[in-house]
Amino acid sequence: MRAQLRKDPVVNRWVIIDPDREEREAIFRSEALIPPHGGVCPFCPGNEGQTPKEIFALGQPGRRPNGAGWWVRVVPDKHPILKIEGELDREPEGMFDFMSPVGAHEIVVETPQHSVEWPDLDDAQLEGILRTYRWRSLDLRNDRRFRQVMVVKNHGDSVSRYEHPHSHVIAFPIVPRGIDEEIQGCLEFYRRKERCIYCDILREEREMRRRVIVASKYFCALAPFASRFPFESWIIPMRHSCDFGEIRSEEISDLARVLKVMLGRMLEFLPRLSCSLIMHTSPLNNFRREEYHWHLELIPKLLKAAGFEWGTGFFVNPIPPEEAAASLRGDKGPTGGNWAKSPLDCWRPTREELEGGR
Amino acid sequence: MRAQLRKDPVVNRWVIIDPDREEREAIFRSEALIPPHGGVCPFCPGNEGQTPKEIFALGQPGRRPNGAGWWVRVVPDKHPILKIEGELDREPEGMFDFMSPVGAHEIVVETPQHSVEWPDLDDAQLEGILRTYRWRSLDLRNDRRFRQVMVVKNHGDSVSRYEHPHSHVIAFPIVPRGIDEEIQGCLEFYRRKERCIYCDILREEREMRRRVIVASKYFCALAPFASRFPFESWIIPMRHSCDFGEIRSEEISDLARVLKVMLGRMLEFLPRLSCSLIMHTSPLNNFRREEYHWHLELIPKLLKAAGFEWGTGFFVNPIPPEEAAASLRGDKGPTGGNWAKSPLDCWRPTREELEGGR
Repeated sequence: MRAQLRKDPVVNRWVIIDPDREEREAIFRSEALIPPHGGVCPFCPGNEGQTPKEIFALGQPGRRPNGAGWWVRVVPDKHPILKIEGELDREPEGMFDFMSPVGAHEIVVETPQHSVEWPDLDDAQLEGILRTYRWRSLDLRNDRRFRQVMVVKNHGDSVSRYEHPHSHVIAFPIVPRGIDEEIQGCLEFYRRKERCIYCDILREEREMRRRVIVASKYFCALAPFASRFPFESWIIPMRHSCDFGEIRSEEISDLARVLKVMLGRMLEFLPRLSCSLIMHTSPLNNFRREEYHWHLELIPKLLKAAGFEWGTGFFVNPIPPEEAAASLRGDKGPTGGNWAKSPLDCWRPTREELEGGR
Repeated sequence: MRAQLRKDPVVNRWVIIDPDREEREAIFRSEALIPPHGGVCPFCPGNEGQTPKEIFALGQPGRRPNGAGWWVRVVPDKHPILKIEGELDREPEGMFDFMSPVGAHEIVVETPQHSVEWPDLDDAQLEGILRTYRWRSLDLRNDRRFRQVMVVKNHGDSVSRYEHPHSHVIAFPIVPRGIDEEIQGCLEFYRRKERCIYCDILREEREMRRRVIVASKYFCALAPFASRFPFESWIIPMRHSCDFGEIRSEEISDLARVLKVMLGRMLEFLPRLSCSLIMHTSPLNNFRREEYHWHLELIPKLLKAAGFEWGTGFFVNPIPPEEAAASLRGDKGPTGGNWAKSPLDCWRPTREELEGGR
């Protein structure tokens, strides 16, 4: 069987069924994945020949592709969950729906250093990583087969495949269900209020203060009101924008600093943290929704899988977000802390935006 | 802070925030939970005094409550995620919504034997467990604060809290998001087709045969078309009914046999399996939907947490459900196997059912 995208007919959730994935082995062995690189890191300088040919890099002027002298490097994933080749075929089988698993799966090698955490990178390097995300997001949308670009950064033993700092940029031919649910929530709120719900959340949280962790000129990091996971955090841009691809240079510099602070505090407080940082941004092209508000979600993996959370979508979280925020702020009370409060304008789309004329 | 139910304002997902949960400790220690019973099993015969007072039991005629002589015993969970005491208060805080964590959380002690798996229980014992689920489901709906009863059975080291065979019966004051999504899918399908989507899935799968694992007189176990997890299985009653509480005695006997076969094959094929068996049934009382079709979902936990699956609702499954079904049937080809094909009528609700007159 070849890999396929399949849609659950009841809840309209797309999944990838791919019998060639290396994770298969772990099912029958019931143990952790063996790192595929076996001693030699394909992402370290000098080993550029061990990855597929690079797609993009930031590096020294005059540097040759796939040679030395890079700071950030983007290569195709050797074991992509979605593949760039082929037509986007849609087929039924009785009442069921298939799609060919067309997409892109790229690895961002975040630094030449093999062992380093984001809080220890210098600002320029972290800005380079974020600029790379923006660049890949803008480039991938030129492929009209794709409806969504996601960026995922895994940290820690229990979720990560390689040791060398890296992240994933994935382009999907569908809108993943988690993003679509947020968009439906935004649309419903907009119909009632003619306002962006994330702008309202920002205003309310900055007023209440208790769940805010860090607030900078352009971003606000907070522990969300109904956190599913202990220390779950969202980083939301103050300026309404549905699309990470439209982030401005000064916002990138600011976001790099916020991320360093946030991850630094998380690692200080939870030294053996495993987590995923996931970019939530609008779908692309015809599926773009101005009512959405892009943001980052930091999802810690601190508890073993609970019995019914996967099956029911119902979560039990033993750490109140107010406590998580206070711990990460480094204070004890709800009004202390080191964050600033700055004005925030709520966004309403213009007539032009709503009519799709961008 | 006291425990609360909180609703995410964007996607309308309720979570429990409860700072008194013992899982807190695991977050900071980053290790598995220590079994709370420390050597003495509170569920074994002779230790009945170590649990809260029993709610229900099947046992010898004339047996005294909380004494010996039981076969199946139901007690309140000592660490309930939802608590039976108190009013169901609903409160706003700015734009956010709270509810008091009122509900029920009961433990079904499935057998007096400390170390035994479902496939090794005799049929009568397993029928007794299922009859107990039915009885608790019927009883809990008399409390008008509750909108949903769920039954969850965890199996295996990585998900289970106690060794002694047990399951959870939980009554919620809200409809968990995972059930609500299925109901919305059923309603949408019914609007278009005037048929139950699960009845259609059953008809289609029994025609195609490839994903059917076991078919009995009253139930069909299958690997769903868009399986999220390796070896995910659904057990669906052939007769349309939205409500597990309406299961008939002959269906209970049949279901006990199907469950024994299914779990036996899963454990034979995947000896170190951890999994959750979750009852999906209609919400209660005013929230009941005849268009829904109750069923059981068996969710194996065979892979480590993937980076973005929690955050995006997008799953990658390396085992095609056709392969899972063939393995669990014990055959190699799509047409072999040991299951029977029997007629299936599709359900359409009567006018009376649709108008809510039950």
